[in-house]
Amino acid sequence: MTIDPLAMTCPAPLRGGDTVLLGHGSGGQLMAELLADLVPVLGAEGQDDAATVHMASPDVVISTDAFVVTPRFFPGGDIGSLAVHGTVNDVAMMGARPVAISLAYVIEEGLPMAELREVTASVARAAAAAGVRVVTGDTKVVGRGAADGLYLVTTGIGTPIPGAAVSARHGAPGDAVLISGPIGLHGITILSTREGLGFESEISSDSRPLHRLVAAMVEAAGSSVHVLRDPTRGGLASALNELAAASAVGVRLDEQAVPIPAQVAAACDLLGLDPLHVANEGCLVAFVHEDAAEPVLAAMRALPEGAQACRIGAVVADHPGRVVMRTLLGSTRVVDMLIGEQLPRIC
Amino acid sequence: MTIDPLAMTCPAPLRGGDTVLLGHGSGGQLMAELLADLVPVLGAEGQDDAATVHMASPDVVISTDAFVVTPRFFPGGDIGSLAVHGTVNDVAMMGARPVAISLAYVIEEGLPMAELREVTASVARAAAAAGVRVVTGDTKVVGRGAADGLYLVTTGIGTPIPGAAVSARHGAPGDAVLISGPIGLHGITILSTREGLGFESEISSDSRPLHRLVAAMVEAAGSSVHVLRDPTRGGLASALNELAAASAVGVRLDEQAVPIPAQVAAACDLLGLDPLHVANEGCLVAFVHEDAAEPVLAAMRALPEGAQACRIGAVVADHPGRVVMRTLLGSTRVVDMLIGEQLPRIC
Repeated sequence: MTIDPLAMTCPAPLRGGDTVLLGHGSGGQLMAELLADLVPVLGAEGQDDAATVHMASPDVVISTDAFVVTPRFFPGGDIGSLAVHGTVNDVAMMGARPVAISLAYVIEEGLPMAELREVTASVARAAAAAGVRVVTGDTKVVGRGAADGLYLVTTGIGTPIPGAAVSARHGAPGDAVLISGPIGLHGITILSTREGLGFESEISSDSRPLHRLVAAMVEAAGSSVHVLRDPTRGGLASALNELAAASAVGVRLDEQAVPIPAQVAAACDLLGLDPLHVANEGCLVAFVHEDAAEPVLAAMRALPEGAQACRIGAVVADHPGRVVMRTLLGSTRVVDMLIGEQLPRIC
Repeated sequence: MTIDPLAMTCPAPLRGGDTVLLGHGSGGQLMAELLADLVPVLGAEGQDDAATVHMASPDVVISTDAFVVTPRFFPGGDIGSLAVHGTVNDVAMMGARPVAISLAYVIEEGLPMAELREVTASVARAAAAAGVRVVTGDTKVVGRGAADGLYLVTTGIGTPIPGAAVSARHGAPGDAVLISGPIGLHGITILSTREGLGFESEISSDSRPLHRLVAAMVEAAGSSVHVLRDPTRGGLASALNELAAASAVGVRLDEQAVPIPAQVAAACDLLGLDPLHVANEGCLVAFVHEDAAEPVLAAMRALPEGAQACRIGAVVADHPGRVVMRTLLGSTRVVDMLIGEQLPRIC
């Protein structure tokens, strides 16, 4: 009798249960099973370790972001939707249309499988809503205590919008400083949810994709849109300081014009925070040639994500690299970057 | 007297010392200082949250990998060089030339700043040696106990090599199965270094870039190079099983032909490991049309990274999705995927 080894099967192989095991990151059979579970949700192919994406032009915009937010689920989103929006927005802030994203997971052993599936489904929903494809990814599992549940890293690629000429260095004296909506919602939501402060019952994160808003702005004003930035970690103050430094210009804000929701203002008062330092995930600040400011504002207000767009200041030749604000009291104060740490793991 | 707020400076601001602080991930001033330290080492620009890369064609290959290896420094490399090589290789395995990579850090509070600089310098050296640019990145800091020192995530983009038609699905019965060099070195080096087994004094990781080897293979044989894969986590056995499944073919290996270094064989004997399941970071396996096998082997052997290239088996029509091996004793055994976990955090 000849034994045919192909006809033999092992005894019941090791299988994962309700939680992620180290073996799910092994490159072996458990990982293949995990990927067979997750990859179809994302709509990716999964047979190669990479993907080929056909872009509209050989100029490719690329941006990467790690997401370590805690808690992973919060009013207005979760780590999955946040990862998609954050990367879509960073690509968009270059004046580009996001096309595809990659997704890497760093998972702590013991993460409930249901939570991994829920986050993955959220990534898929957010990507579909933004019109980008998740094309490739990676999965690593580390032991208990070597991560805090789940971290995601997304990298986006996109195509420059024809006619766009956006850069942190393109700000010019005389430009209008525009903002697409109210500030502080993401940071206060995360802080309040984490600490159980109660504000989260009234507000939610502004996490959302902004690439359609950018496309509308560029369509309205072409290269007159000089600078775009989403003021995430470090808030509006840090973003404006970075842009002032990159463009070697000054920025003059009008405090009265900066849209701060009442709940954000109340929370900041209570906690001793400056709303200008609180993180946002769904608004953008733009430096736009003065002649284009009104058409751009009109284009922004035509979209839900820009409905509350307004002018908050101007770019000036004075004090290059510095941001100042005319306060409600009529005095002027320097608006500095966030120093140190206001709230870790906000995104 | 009028007070000019621009002439005022704060008292000595908070500054980082010898270790990474939570504030280094805040988006504020400490982070700006950290980036001013690291970004020039990488040769990136750093003023925008994204970069524009001019590619040779609108078809873009993209791949992403998270690196959680422990220890972070090992004979033959470190987490920085490994991250570059891993991503360069995943792009190359699509028959593409890697052009640029992005780099995301997840850092545990308290990581020595010197180590962060050392890893960053290693990333820069490996990228320069591979001829790819680090174009954009992200830095997140998590609290003590929420990571194990440092994780890196690299995403690579590349351009398909003209004439290449490589895919995990392109394997065909009759193809020769080639390997570029000895197996098991990375896995045994990491295991031995971590556990202090002593083998690491004699062997070192094979971590290295393989894109020049891929270019030489495609130049030699064009679309006759059907399948490329670097057998990392899960080892040669898992890679071949994945490819057999993706191409719906069988693979027949010849045990005598598989190049296993003596030290790897000795370590595997001692530890009860199958060398076919041990991770590699610097070799590739290829399915090549039989007529092209010898020219491709000649092209591989002309490069240092392919000097020990050899034929280890053939693709067959029998037992699709399965890998079998003719052993040294003349019998045949099934070569299965790694089941469960051999060695966590190997890459």
